[in-house]
Amino acid sequence: MQDIYSDRSYGEDKVGFGERLGILVVDFQKAFTDGRFPMGGSDRIDKAVENTARLLSVAREKNIPVASCFVAYPNLASMPYWKVGAIKETLFEGSEAAELDPRIADHKYDYVFQKEGASAFFMTPCSAFFTKHKVDTIAVTGCVTSGCVRASAVDSFQFGFRTMLVDDCSGDHDEGPHQDTMRDVGRRYADVVRSDDVINFMMRNN
Amino acid sequence: MQDIYSDRSYGEDKVGFGERLGILVVDFQKAFTDGRFPMGGSDRIDKAVENTARLLSVAREKNIPVASCFVAYPNLASMPYWKVGAIKETLFEGSEAAELDPRIADHKYDYVFQKEGASAFFMTPCSAFFTKHKVDTIAVTGCVTSGCVRASAVDSFQFGFRTMLVDDCSGDHDEGPHQDTMRDVGRRYADVVRSDDVINFMMRNN
Amino acid sequence: MQDIYSDRSYGEDKVGFGERLGILVVDFQKAFTDGRFPMGGSDRIDKAVENTARLLSVAREKNIPVASCFVAYPNLASMPYWKVGAIKETLFEGSEAAELDPRIADHKYDYVFQKEGASAFFMTPCSAFFTKHKVDTIAVTGCVTSGCVRASAVDSFQFGFRTMLVDDCSGDHDEGPHQDTMRDVGRRYADVVRSDDVINFMMRNN
Amino acid sequence: MQDIYSDRSYGEDKVGFGERLGILVVDFQKAFTDGRFPMGGSDRIDKAVENTARLLSVAREKNIPVASCFVAYPNLASMPYWKVGAIKETLFEGSEAAELDPRIADHKYDYVFQKEGASAFFMTPCSAFFTKHKVDTIAVTGCVTSGCVRASAVDSFQFGFRTMLVDDCSGDHDEGPHQDTMRDVGRRYADVVRSDDVINFMMRNN
Repeated sequence: MQDIYSDRSYGEDKVGFGERLGILVVDFQKAFTDGRFPMGGSDRIDKAVENTARLLSVAREKNIPVASCFVAYPNLASMPYWKVGAIKETLFEGSEAAELDPRIADHKYDYVFQKEGASAFFMTPCSAFFTKHKVDTIAVTGCVTSGCVRASAVDSFQFGFRTMLVDDCSGDHDEGPHQDTMRDVGRRYADVVRSDDVINFMMRNN
Repeated sequence: MQDIYSDRSYGEDKVGFGERLGILVVDFQKAFTDGRFPMGGSDRIDKAVENTARLLSVAREKNIPVASCFVAYPNLASMPYWKVGAIKETLFEGSEAAELDPRIADHKYDYVFQKEGASAFFMTPCSAFFTKHKVDTIAVTGCVTSGCVRASAVDSFQFGFRTMLVDDCSGDHDEGPHQDTMRDVGRRYADVVRSDDVINFMMRNN
Repeated sequence: MQDIYSDRSYGEDKVGFGERLGILVVDFQKAFTDGRFPMGGSDRIDKAVENTARLLSVAREKNIPVASCFVAYPNLASMPYWKVGAIKETLFEGSEAAELDPRIADHKYDYVFQKEGASAFFMTPCSAFFTKHKVDTIAVTGCVTSGCVRASAVDSFQFGFRTMLVDDCSGDHDEGPHQDTMRDVGRRYADVVRSDDVINFMMRNN
Repeated sequence: MQDIYSDRSYGEDKVGFGERLGILVVDFQKAFTDGRFPMGGSDRIDKAVENTARLLSVAREKNIPVASCFVAYPNLASMPYWKVGAIKETLFEGSEAAELDPRIADHKYDYVFQKEGASAFFMTPCSAFFTKHKVDTIAVTGCVTSGCVRASAVDSFQFGFRTMLVDDCSGDHDEGPHQDTMRDVGRRYADVVRSDDVINFMMRNN
């Protein structure tokens, strides 16, 4: 579809997979995946968790590096200026809200790390982990699409990685902001792909 | 308006201005503000330039720190994986596309710096500059709203600053992605304000 | 004393305290402060712990922001290429080696965070914490002087903070590398001060 | 030689070259390499320039990525709190002091970038450049050993790269601080090697 952005060459080029893949899982923690928490309980996020679990089972079998993060703070004073009330009430270190969803968590295999910003890369060892494992392509999954997933995909691009934003492994509270993210990110920084594309790549290349 | 996000406490809190303001101007360079370049020539961006020029004239009078960046690369090999064809053809160091728009540029007063990512903060001295000047609140202006402005606003928040996203000082190629950005950022990371709000703050406080 | 560095204007200027102080405590964790661990058991480090405890008791009384970090890794695969064998054998998340020394730890008051590099600022929320608290001057304490303390002091400088390297609150395994650090850092990036200088500043200004 | 550090397992492990090498050249700019400038005119630095030039001629022939930086500031207000008077008087953008030494400069081949901290990696696109080129091993050269070279080597390590500190390609104003750096860095973060080791690696592997 032609529009004012494609007229200006947005989305003209494809990124493409490189040689060595890594998977990033953003904030699939109970605060967002479990309906008992004020920000939890979205079908869209639930489905993304299931799809990511399927993708991760292949990744771990194929020895693909997996980094999985959660957001949590020691206390209120250490948080940036969040406008989301529930974040300030629930996202504390050691709380259940900070626990990874058991469907995607493998503390033995994955590199699990805490973050305090929106992006999984912001002031965390995320890029160093992928660099050390010689990853050149990062598949980004997680929630919430229009928040931390988007910020993470932009950073993955900025750090020099080929970035794959996995549409059906990424969930939002509502559909509109999810699609807007795919549109904005997909014409600038990353290829928007499906979990099957990533799985096929792993089956062929690893 | 109530929606699924406000139900979950998004946008519940306000950030508010702090004590010391700084202005960030993102990518008001000819590549985007001048119609002779493939990505240039948007009325929305043009208007944002004019509004920012007005805001900056007050800021400089009131001795408010101003940081202004442009994106440029030494060569193709040093670029991240952009999907925008025109970026790869125009954004080179020393080219006219990399020059700041004369309406907002004041090389004597402003802290002008080059960036290579989307965010003005990514791998640049931007945060150090504001930290050194004891800024606690950053008003973000520039283009393109749904790209580099958004990434910069998210980073401003992540670095611990109070962040004001100045709606009418920020321009995009089209209206939809501009509004989507205000919506997504405004309920998470920053207050969406008007240039007059920032000008009034400067008149009262400096 | 005149030498080839002062001939070239090294150390010519003083940094000086600014307006708002913060304290950074680097790696006073049992791995380094407790003789039961392979890298622990240095009198120099022990003395630095005692001096820092004294400094911190004033800081907490005066409501000065304190950030205290420890180094730990989820597993071997996530470590950078350390050449220190004992690091690879002891510094795991949840282990006793990663626990802060009780003499300096106050988990209720301090901002406690984990790091994975040498510097307390590297890929951690350390600078965002100090920025949020409007700190412009950071007093650096901890161990080991010629390793993580030095890297942290350099980063504090690089982030735009006024940096005070607190000589008697910083410990090394041996005296030579401690002094070399004071010399190198003190003529470039930071004022070398005593704990009493910092305490006096807090008494006068807070 | 056994000492208190090797007793504690410092220097016990070797890093070793990986698969893909990159070269980092730190601050071989006229301010430090040319005796007409207040910080310039050291035989040690001169020799390091010559050795690096020899190493770079092989690197460019073998298509090894080379990143070369210089430090410069737009003005005094944008500098961090340097204690070196001459830095504040000479290191301005566009000045001759900021020009790379012609013996090591190849603006066509090298990735040349500006920095504002001590480390070549601090708030610069340096790590993204090496990541994009799939480098896993960085050979660090440049000046001044006990300042910017050391800070760069520590960051190279922290970013997850195998780090080679090239002894005879690194120069300081005086011998002591150079040797202290080799000692401190070499037992923690990097292998200390000679230019011939790096050249031999390139001849064998590229």
